[in-house]
Amino acid sequence: MIVDCAAYERGKRKQAELSMRQAGEAAAEEGTFVWLGVVAPSEEEFKAVAAEFGLHELAVEDAVRAHQRPKVESYGDTLHVVVKTAVYVDPEEVIELGEVSIFVASDFVITVRHGNADLAPVRARLEERTDLLEKGPGAVLYAILDHVVDRYLEAAHGFDQDVREVELQVFGEGQNPTERIYKLEREVLEFQAATAPLAEALEELCSGNFAVVPEALHEYFRDVEDHLARVATRIENFRQLLDSALEANLTQVSMRQNEDMRKISAWVAIAVVPTAIAGIYGMNFEHMPELEWSLGYPAVLALIAAVCLFLYWRFKRAGWL
Amino acid sequence: MIVDCAAYERGKRKQAELSMRQAGEAAAEEGTFVWLGVVAPSEEEFKAVAAEFGLHELAVEDAVRAHQRPKVESYGDTLHVVVKTAVYVDPEEVIELGEVSIFVASDFVITVRHGNADLAPVRARLEERTDLLEKGPGAVLYAILDHVVDRYLEAAHGFDQDVREVELQVFGEGQNPTERIYKLEREVLEFQAATAPLAEALEELCSGNFAVVPEALHEYFRDVEDHLARVATRIENFRQLLDSALEANLTQVSMRQNEDMRKISAWVAIAVVPTAIAGIYGMNFEHMPELEWSLGYPAVLALIAAVCLFLYWRFKRAGWL
Amino acid sequence: MIVDCAAYERGKRKQAELSMRQAGEAAAEEGTFVWLGVVAPSEEEFKAVAAEFGLHELAVEDAVRAHQRPKVESYGDTLHVVVKTAVYVDPEEVIELGEVSIFVASDFVITVRHGNADLAPVRARLEERTDLLEKGPGAVLYAILDHVVDRYLEAAHGFDQDVREVELQVFGEGQNPTERIYKLEREVLEFQAATAPLAEALEELCSGNFAVVPEALHEYFRDVEDHLARVATRIENFRQLLDSALEANLTQVSMRQNEDMRKISAWVAIAVVPTAIAGIYGMNFEHMPELEWSLGYPAVLALIAAVCLFLYWRFKRAGWL
Amino acid sequence: MIVDCAAYERGKRKQAELSMRQAGEAAAEEGTFVWLGVVAPSEEEFKAVAAEFGLHELAVEDAVRAHQRPKVESYGDTLHVVVKTAVYVDPEEVIELGEVSIFVASDFVITVRHGNADLAPVRARLEERTDLLEKGPGAVLYAILDHVVDRYLEAAHGFDQDVREVELQVFGEGQNPTERIYKLEREVLEFQAATAPLAEALEELCSGNFAVVPEALHEYFRDVEDHLARVATRIENFRQLLDSALEANLTQVSMRQNEDMRKISAWVAIAVVPTAIAGIYGMNFEHMPELEWSLGYPAVLALIAAVCLFLYWRFKRAGWL
Amino acid sequence: MIVDCAAYERGKRKQAELSMRQAGEAAAEEGTFVWLGVVAPSEEEFKAVAAEFGLHELAVEDAVRAHQRPKVESYGDTLHVVVKTAVYVDPEEVIELGEVSIFVASDFVITVRHGNADLAPVRARLEERTDLLEKGPGAVLYAILDHVVDRYLEAAHGFDQDVREVELQVFGEGQNPTERIYKLEREVLEFQAATAPLAEALEELCSGNFAVVPEALHEYFRDVEDHLARVATRIENFRQLLDSALEANLTQVSMRQNEDMRKISAWVAIAVVPTAIAGIYGMNFEHMPELEWSLGYPAVLALIAAVCLFLYWRFKRAGWL
Repeated sequence: MIVDCAAYERGKRKQAELSMRQAGEAAAEEGTFVWLGVVAPSEEEFKAVAAEFGLHELAVEDAVRAHQRPKVESYGDTLHVVVKTAVYVDPEEVIELGEVSIFVASDFVITVRHGNADLAPVRARLEERTDLLEKGPGAVLYAILDHVVDRYLEAAHGFDQDVREVELQVFGEGQNPTERIYKLEREVLEFQAATAPLAEALEELCSGNFAVVPEALHEYFRDVEDHLARVATRIENFRQLLDSALEANLTQVSMRQNEDMRKISAWVAIAVVPTAIAGIYGMNFEHMPELEWSLGYPAVLALIAAVCLFLYWRFKRAGWL
Repeated sequence: MIVDCAAYERGKRKQAELSMRQAGEAAAEEGTFVWLGVVAPSEEEFKAVAAEFGLHELAVEDAVRAHQRPKVESYGDTLHVVVKTAVYVDPEEVIELGEVSIFVASDFVITVRHGNADLAPVRARLEERTDLLEKGPGAVLYAILDHVVDRYLEAAHGFDQDVREVELQVFGEGQNPTERIYKLEREVLEFQAATAPLAEALEELCSGNFAVVPEALHEYFRDVEDHLARVATRIENFRQLLDSALEANLTQVSMRQNEDMRKISAWVAIAVVPTAIAGIYGMNFEHMPELEWSLGYPAVLALIAAVCLFLYWRFKRAGWL
Repeated sequence: MIVDCAAYERGKRKQAELSMRQAGEAAAEEGTFVWLGVVAPSEEEFKAVAAEFGLHELAVEDAVRAHQRPKVESYGDTLHVVVKTAVYVDPEEVIELGEVSIFVASDFVITVRHGNADLAPVRARLEERTDLLEKGPGAVLYAILDHVVDRYLEAAHGFDQDVREVELQVFGEGQNPTERIYKLEREVLEFQAATAPLAEALEELCSGNFAVVPEALHEYFRDVEDHLARVATRIENFRQLLDSALEANLTQVSMRQNEDMRKISAWVAIAVVPTAIAGIYGMNFEHMPELEWSLGYPAVLALIAAVCLFLYWRFKRAGWL
Repeated sequence: MIVDCAAYERGKRKQAELSMRQAGEAAAEEGTFVWLGVVAPSEEEFKAVAAEFGLHELAVEDAVRAHQRPKVESYGDTLHVVVKTAVYVDPEEVIELGEVSIFVASDFVITVRHGNADLAPVRARLEERTDLLEKGPGAVLYAILDHVVDRYLEAAHGFDQDVREVELQVFGEGQNPTERIYKLEREVLEFQAATAPLAEALEELCSGNFAVVPEALHEYFRDVEDHLARVATRIENFRQLLDSALEANLTQVSMRQNEDMRKISAWVAIAVVPTAIAGIYGMNFEHMPELEWSLGYPAVLALIAAVCLFLYWRFKRAGWL
Repeated sequence: MIVDCAAYERGKRKQAELSMRQAGEAAAEEGTFVWLGVVAPSEEEFKAVAAEFGLHELAVEDAVRAHQRPKVESYGDTLHVVVKTAVYVDPEEVIELGEVSIFVASDFVITVRHGNADLAPVRARLEERTDLLEKGPGAVLYAILDHVVDRYLEAAHGFDQDVREVELQVFGEGQNPTERIYKLEREVLEFQAATAPLAEALEELCSGNFAVVPEALHEYFRDVEDHLARVATRIENFRQLLDSALEANLTQVSMRQNEDMRKISAWVAIAVVPTAIAGIYGMNFEHMPELEWSLGYPAVLALIAAVCLFLYWRFKRAGWL
């Protein structure tokens, strides 16, 4: 589905909306480029676009199917950039991935979006930056990547908060955080798989090998690369922290087991005392002088209570109760 | 055993079937190449093929023996590519590996297959793509690698499902998944060993150093490389997840042990009470007023029941029962 | 907020203090450079500075926002160096990070500081080293980096002491150090993330690609690089040690659990004896000769005491008590 | 001790056996090379060889002392290759390492063997391959390396079987495999240390920098490199598997502990019942109607048996017994 | 403190001892070089040396302060090499580190020693090797590095023995080796940090970029590099082994806990029997025929003994006792 299609000349949007045929013509004009936005196209639909703009068979397949790795590939003069979008959905603690395929040539940009990645705000913000738009289709590529990587930073922030919550669970009382740690680890791995290959792609874009990324934009792409490197470091640290949290959690579980065992043992020891003492005075010897004392019974009850209290006090002092 | 042998000219299959001698002659014709398919040949058999097409002694040994690593090697003008095929057999949760040796020169392709890797569908599909076949023997190499790597993605999908099942076992009730995790880890390692070296081989094929892989096919090989990179990332993630699952499982085992211990202790504590109380009233003191009360016995039974119920309620509330 | 601004000619400070306008003029003089120190500027404030000295839009954004990765970037003739400052706050065992952005061109240095990184002592010390200051703005860059990396060594020293304390806790009696180990690991990771990227930046500065770092200063930057490498090795070792400490701690917890279990069991065994013996003499058989002995009762008490003492002695000898 | 010494011309052995002096002369002849085999020589002995063939002081030291790392070094025109031989001794599950030092120049090969590495079969087999021998001393080097690396594959096979046995022990009943896993890990590490550096050495030999390894032999050395890569992958996998086996084993130990604890607890619970019930009827109340019933005693015995059986059945059903 | 200072000409020591002034003059003579040995100099002392031989400010600082990383740095024509010396002190199981700073130019060598690194034997041995000394100051550098790295091998040998002792402790009876393993790991990390950077330094020395290391000495430095690589592999293996030992130890602790638990439980089960049986015959039913039997009492005692012995035999057979 085509969602927006416009021609840009000297950094300004020329007309409100173009049909695909008009787009092809506008692109052919000197000093003008077209930005065509498509969302989750069918194979049919996108083949028409590909025919109009001369896209490579394999790139078309990639763009329609989604589930690609982030990458930069040049098919002749056309650059094909694939990038994953990521949103961290906090209540479920999952990372939701989308995908944007961007075809960039000297006179057009085609963006194919799958999943959660609204590009309308990117277009709106960019149309206000005439100075950037003047630099041609490469500026559109920059604006999209910048937007996508800023979303990564937000997602990383979401992870950060959940990792801190997990830490509180590990070292606090309460329910067992093992499953949560594991699930977070799974999501972090997925996030890493989606973002890590982009680093290489960005490096290539900064290398000056591609005509559609003019020298004047290199600093902008380098800036995106830098933000991505921050995301990468944070993801790596999440993995380290979750690994350590898993191990710390195991230790805490052992510690708590030990505390429970001590508490249980202490109570058992206290309960064994009356049984043992009562057992002795339950023996049937003929000559047991205490049995005949008139205060024998209360004395023994007092003895039992005294020993139990003494044990309770000792265990309390030793921290077992 | 030769399974199929045909000559191709300008992207079209010339005759239904050739004998090996005819194949050698057909290959010598200008603008024609031969595709000879062999399955698990004996040394004898394959030496005849090698003699006809001038293959190197060492390559022959590799092709007959199987158990090679994936690789690309050039013996003069002939390229020797070895690739592992993989099928994930789900009920047994094992990865079954096969092997395909491909000899590619400007005028012939020889494919030697061991194990589970039927190439007939690849040939059938490729024969419909005249545009690709026109590009020569390199197109055959592409078609096979593309097919093999797509099978890897299917195998990775199979692993994915089993890893998710294992997770349910780790965090759910039921039997001990330790052995299953370990066995999956073993299979993942084997899968990785079979697929990882192919990445380097594919990079070499894209490097433009080999005449049999013309420039026009580079984008196709790059596409295969890309799919392989996705497989590699998933395998790496499986390893990470299984590692974490093993550790999480240990923690869960400890947790469950603790829960059992608490439950056992609670019941022991409840059982100790009647013994202790009964012990006291089993003492033989002469002066124990309660013994003479007419309701002494039912009162003590009630006391015992009350204490037991109280303990039961406390343990229930504390989550030990 | 501008904190200090002065012009330097032939290694000497020319005037006490300049306004920003004067600074721009002074920088334009031959053989003179200006050092402008700014602390946590607002976007407004810093845009004025950027306009005066012609700084790039993206660099300005970085300098104002902080939270950048350490890096070296050249925007035309101007070098933009970002470096993290680190202070280890011992009682809380946290690493406190600040940030310094340094813009270096042939005729000016602008330092933008965020957080804990007083540069006044650096300026004071450098003004006494005429021989270094003569080498131009690059010397200022060196002096700052040298200062920052020396602070890293101090922070590493702080970590070292806490790691040693943690070791004593792991192998001594006392409270559970799991949380402390985990928290230290978190801080070490943050410290590493802040310092590691600087290595690459320093290597670039030594590469001779930047005019503002003259050959004569290479040895000085190499010296800083060397100190940073020492910090990196120590951080890596802290991570290894804390990892091992976490595992050793788990083993110690298990050991202590075992000791507790033995101790508990020994006491339970000792307590079971009187109950069992007393039980036997509490049986109601008509023919139990011992019951009629006049010394039966004291004999049994002595027997109980003897068995208990014997068990106590055995457990003591076996190290269970 | 010199074990065999012969001259080769055009791929054929010239005379049965040469003295060292004769060897030196034969080497000097055009188109002839000498292969001198030495076993564990004394320093004296080997200094004579070194003087005759002009070997470097340091190389001599290496060859006599053994305990070198695998490596390729060129001393002028002479190549010095050191390689470790490995035999897996199965009953003891240890890897036994030997060492072969090979000096290769255009007109001689000197092989110095320490430990378990009989080169006689290599020589015998090579003497039948005139086509290889014709290629000069480099062919001898190839034949030895090929032989050594094939032995590695056998050793890896031996490890494989023991790793599989260990797996059965981890997941089966029976003795504790911890020590065996650890010892295997130690041997795998030693095997890896002995074989890994050879990869780099082989790469150098294939690089075409050494005159004694002619182009025609590159494919042969590449083949050895390939086999070595297979060994390396397997070793790496052994390490991974043994690591996981160690962790899985710990989990199994915990599982079994839990099972034991449940079994013990169940029996204790069953044993506590008669004590508690008997305790109640051992109380001395005057008014306990059951005591006077004529079937009271058998009824209580029946009650005890019933409760015990009920508990036994419940524990059985819950899988605790 | 200057410990030895001599001039060497054509590989021979010229005079017994020189003052520093004489040393400067001797160094200026053609074909002569001076070797000045200093031990732990004060800043004053070493500044005088530096002035005489024209050493760089930063190098002087490094040499006086010690605590540097191993490295090679060239300040103009002067090479500054820093190397750590290591001695393994066995009874304490610690690695003791020292440091040697070596300044090498075409006409002098200055060695600055801190800590445990007596260079007198190096000088003595080298003075007997005229052939090496003839090659100039580079030979002195070689001799020192060779000596230092040989000490590393000795230290590695010391570690090896302690690692083997630790293994015996892990798998044998006796005290808990956790702390010892951890401490060894700490020392290994320190040893690694001290030796690893030297590899890079040695590679640089072999690169042929430095005039003071003539081609004729490359093979000697390569030999040292090789020995260092052996040290590095062994250190890496120690780390792996200690890691595994820590985990194996945890498993052994769990195993032993399980054994203790079984033993304890078996005794408790045996002790519960007399209590339960005696309890039954302690009931006060009027109609308990056994109580009136004249052999009732001995029969019950026999029954108790029989059941206890039966249980003992069963537990013994099951390996719990």
